[in-house]
Amino acid sequence: MTVNTGQPARVTRKDVARYAGVSTAVVSYVINAGPKKVAPGTEAKVLDAIQVLGYRPNAAARALKLGSTEMLGLVIPGNTNPFFAELSEAIEQAANERGYALLLTSSDGATSKERKHVRNLLSRQVDGLLLTSVEDEPYLDDVIASGIPAVLLNRYQPSEHLPSVGVDLAEGARAAVEHLIWHGYENIGLVKGISASRIPDEREEGWASALTKAGLREGQIFTSTFSMEGGYRAGQRIAAARDRPTAVFVSSDAQAVGVLRALHEAGLQVPQDIALVSFDASFQSAFTWPALTAMHQPTEQMAEAAVSALLDRETASTENMVFPTDLVVRRSCGCLPES
Amino acid sequence: MTVNTGQPARVTRKDVARYAGVSTAVVSYVINAGPKKVAPGTEAKVLDAIQVLGYRPNAAARALKLGSTEMLGLVIPGNTNPFFAELSEAIEQAANERGYALLLTSSDGATSKERKHVRNLLSRQVDGLLLTSVEDEPYLDDVIASGIPAVLLNRYQPSEHLPSVGVDLAEGARAAVEHLIWHGYENIGLVKGISASRIPDEREEGWASALTKAGLREGQIFTSTFSMEGGYRAGQRIAAARDRPTAVFVSSDAQAVGVLRALHEAGLQVPQDIALVSFDASFQSAFTWPALTAMHQPTEQMAEAAVSALLDRETASTENMVFPTDLVVRRSCGCLPES
Repeated sequence: MTVNTGQPARVTRKDVARYAGVSTAVVSYVINAGPKKVAPGTEAKVLDAIQVLGYRPNAAARALKLGSTEMLGLVIPGNTNPFFAELSEAIEQAANERGYALLLTSSDGATSKERKHVRNLLSRQVDGLLLTSVEDEPYLDDVIASGIPAVLLNRYQPSEHLPSVGVDLAEGARAAVEHLIWHGYENIGLVKGISASRIPDEREEGWASALTKAGLREGQIFTSTFSMEGGYRAGQRIAAARDRPTAVFVSSDAQAVGVLRALHEAGLQVPQDIALVSFDASFQSAFTWPALTAMHQPTEQMAEAAVSALLDRETASTENMVFPTDLVVRRSCGCLPES
Repeated sequence: MTVNTGQPARVTRKDVARYAGVSTAVVSYVINAGPKKVAPGTEAKVLDAIQVLGYRPNAAARALKLGSTEMLGLVIPGNTNPFFAELSEAIEQAANERGYALLLTSSDGATSKERKHVRNLLSRQVDGLLLTSVEDEPYLDDVIASGIPAVLLNRYQPSEHLPSVGVDLAEGARAAVEHLIWHGYENIGLVKGISASRIPDEREEGWASALTKAGLREGQIFTSTFSMEGGYRAGQRIAAARDRPTAVFVSSDAQAVGVLRALHEAGLQVPQDIALVSFDASFQSAFTWPALTAMHQPTEQMAEAAVSALLDRETASTENMVFPTDLVVRRSCGCLPES
């Protein structure tokens, strides 16, 4: 049988094995960087043989034979949001550990781009799809029809059709606001994120419930996109607010970074004039000024759970996996730990 | 001819076209999201046909036939560095515009991981490889032997074997330091990055040459990894330095973010006690406190040039493409513009 591959693989893995004086299995391990380790000397021999013979492994033929592309596809809003940068890096890591590569796509938070990427990833026959959707109820007919396993990321509400991974947003927001209440703040505002959601905002619910429980009135709500730019504009509105809050719970680190910039520009001190607690506690949150007290999302565990749901189909959970968040205490709330 | 595909494609593109009442070309456009646009109504018909018939396009068979996987592979140190987050997003965009998907891998700045990723991407037969190497002279024998087009990113020195894309680091550093000299600072330090390089550090050369030209002595050098953590430790050393510099040129935004944190913690004011100019001017640099004056790397143009060098082989440059950097003036140098 002859198949036109554009660049036909004249030299086979067997030729490489014979030239290097090793088994074809060892050649595979070197080419695929696993699953078994190969001694550096042996590896050098195989690489030398590959070069001398001009061998090119044929990924397309391999995929046809395996019925697998050994790739996962990821859709995130974009990695200039530190939380998604961290999450996508953790997912790449979890995929690599299993011998899978990651196709990364950014939707910029736009439904049309998200759908286009999903369709494209399906047509590339990824072995699994990880989708951070802009919508509560993303259009999943294509995904389900494809039979390709998929998991929804960054999602608290269970989906009817797919497993999902997220954190308990309401509980996290409640804990954040309770920490501000413990500090003695009474006028506590909210920087809320904009989503295409018709479901009530869970962080807002957590914020409101903590205030109600403490007998405090709900402070002002400032809505913005989940971005540094959005947070910046929200921060300008906070600084100019007539009944300015003394503390604010901010729905993401990206927004909090922008809020801080606006408050600094307005000459307001954090936490003395306005205390902040943020959500995500991504790598970024330790490096703002002041460093952000924030609810930490366990990105590594979430990435591991999501990739496992796609690839370890027998043992993995297929349900809605909800992780708890932890309070990371730094300076922006008024606590002053060493670091 | 029968090929065992694991999941044989019983339904063909022809069946879908017949059911939807369109040509097979239109079916292709819908599946591949291009290259031609399809009217929304027609697209809906095709998607409906795909779902009803349970059609799964076979990417592996397509790749065999085309001799192309329509994928590019990217190796970056990691996207928790804002410059690389921005660059990888720009590359994804440039690849997508040409109908290519992007396999993203992170080396964490480690040679062993970099080589493993390169080998893995080659074995997946990407149509092009974009490599941000840890080394001046990365091991490229595998890449060259594969015949797969490759381009080196974030590189100022030309490579013997491959086209490359970068900025004029020495010239950028010189302009940054000249700006600090114009402000009147005389004791100007350097936060330098650690690399596996045996080539003299170009930013250091630019820094030194600007000082020499102005008749100023070279200030102290603080070396760190190109990361927020590294910059933080460098900043602690700056704050504690006996002959503390009054201004510092910092080799990357990631480091500058860390330096700022350390200076704040030490109770030092930027720019009053120490002025800073950084390198990259990534999205992050506008959102630090104070906002960073920085030399801007044109990531979109660089991404476009790199992807073009891989895919537009007839017209694209195959040489070392060096872009200029521009000074973005903000607060950290002592200039106080509106924004």
